[in-house]
Amino acid sequence: MTALHPTGVFSAALTPFDANLEPDHAAFVAHAKRLLDQGCDGIAMLGTTGEANSLTTAERQALLEATVAGGVAPDRLLPGTGVAALPDTIALTRHALSCGVTTVVMLPPFYYKGISDDGLFAAYAEVVERVADPRLRVVLYHIPPMSAVPITFPVIERLRARYPGTFTGIKDSSGDLANMTALVKTFPGLSVLAGADPLMLPLLKEGGAGCITATSNLVAADLAFIFRHHADPARAAEVEAAQARVVAARNQVSRFPQIASLKAMLAERTGQPGWRRLRPPLLALTNDEAAAMLAA
Amino acid sequence: MTALHPTGVFSAALTPFDANLEPDHAAFVAHAKRLLDQGCDGIAMLGTTGEANSLTTAERQALLEATVAGGVAPDRLLPGTGVAALPDTIALTRHALSCGVTTVVMLPPFYYKGISDDGLFAAYAEVVERVADPRLRVVLYHIPPMSAVPITFPVIERLRARYPGTFTGIKDSSGDLANMTALVKTFPGLSVLAGADPLMLPLLKEGGAGCITATSNLVAADLAFIFRHHADPARAAEVEAAQARVVAARNQVSRFPQIASLKAMLAERTGQPGWRRLRPPLLALTNDEAAAMLAA
Repeated sequence: MTALHPTGVFSAALTPFDANLEPDHAAFVAHAKRLLDQGCDGIAMLGTTGEANSLTTAERQALLEATVAGGVAPDRLLPGTGVAALPDTIALTRHALSCGVTTVVMLPPFYYKGISDDGLFAAYAEVVERVADPRLRVVLYHIPPMSAVPITFPVIERLRARYPGTFTGIKDSSGDLANMTALVKTFPGLSVLAGADPLMLPLLKEGGAGCITATSNLVAADLAFIFRHHADPARAAEVEAAQARVVAARNQVSRFPQIASLKAMLAERTGQPGWRRLRPPLLALTNDEAAAMLAA
Repeated sequence: MTALHPTGVFSAALTPFDANLEPDHAAFVAHAKRLLDQGCDGIAMLGTTGEANSLTTAERQALLEATVAGGVAPDRLLPGTGVAALPDTIALTRHALSCGVTTVVMLPPFYYKGISDDGLFAAYAEVVERVADPRLRVVLYHIPPMSAVPITFPVIERLRARYPGTFTGIKDSSGDLANMTALVKTFPGLSVLAGADPLMLPLLKEGGAGCITATSNLVAADLAFIFRHHADPARAAEVEAAQARVVAARNQVSRFPQIASLKAMLAERTGQPGWRRLRPPLLALTNDEAAAMLAA
């Protein structure tokens, strides 16, 4: 179990925007540090929850650089680097390595649908070959509801066989615990990370490695507690209580669009209304929606 | 009818790659000129068929510049400029205008799914506001099988009302003739372009404006003939024969993945095997597949 990499609670951190809808570096760095202080093992920045696919390559790179410059150790960062165009994925991955990051979370190329296993394998293989850096560790990012390009078991098998030690993990945001447990059983040594907060606990009991999740922006301490104590019978009641709070928070932010709800909650908690902004096509909650969500 | 813009046959041109999988400018320019010589009214470059979403922003800009520099009039070009990240869509659109292009084909931001009408409207509105150039003409790009972000009628209505004269057309690649004809009926003055070659003729009869299609890479002359003569009873038999060839070509390239099949056909016709290359996640046909397709 200790060989799994990465393991722990990784927050799919939200990205704050300024009034011109540019990434707010200072607010992001403060948020990342707060999440680490609350017990997160690392920050999975620039993912779906971080609206990364609404950011340019240059904006992603600048935010990563600002985060490292702001004092977050690069080995605590798992930036997303997988985008639609192969050369951009290569550039983002190289850049992350140049910042001291070693583990990235990589979406499949997500524009073309109905991709063959050969094509998906080729896309990931081309990145590894062209990045050509033995330090690289990749967490595959399986999120069919958003990418509409699932990462199939045969592709995972081929990638791990062809590039031993590179494809160390998978974030499974299918929402399907059965798929996550099948990954654990099928690929010994693969770090399987739940993409939904309430599923981390049941997945840990099946040999999972932790989570990369959105609600952790709000309930990082509870998730960290669950991760550390889930196997300790003496803490079972506390773990259960923490899990109940995680489930409640997740339900609260799922009544309206999730990223907007998380941002509204964070704006409320931090007293920084700027957190409410999203980049189109995502939109902030209306005042009525925010009030209803916060009252829940 | 003459007020519709754009009208005619626009080829969703394929993009050739060199041995290093970089866009081959010279081969592209030659192909674009050939398509115009064959009767295309323009070239809808950098679309789905052109593998544009496997290209970086810089690669798209360089290909467009090379095409104009190579002697293709920019008013014959309808480049795709809609990508996942808003600032990239804005940059690509501004760049196209700077090259003398006035009409672009714009995908919705395609990573986030389940987008609200308000969010989709905001995404397009933000582009228009930030590009801030009265020359801009936009053809909306409705291709739910690939984008998984449909462009709804209420969004079209709001965009046309808010920005009169800007959203002049829509490419409908839903494959659903009923949706195309409903667009014609619902939005007088909107140029509705079929996204599937065999549907141009029936759509023209319903008041459609033409097509932006993939098989036109192979059958441009037939499509151009159909477009010019579809309403002439004296040419009905010739139109029918041309349509039969279009349908046959489309069927031929649909037995295997379409873009790869089109490229294999073009490699065969031009005697330039380099046309067979695709960028991952798309792959060239295997030799067996190519032989089976060409024999059909």
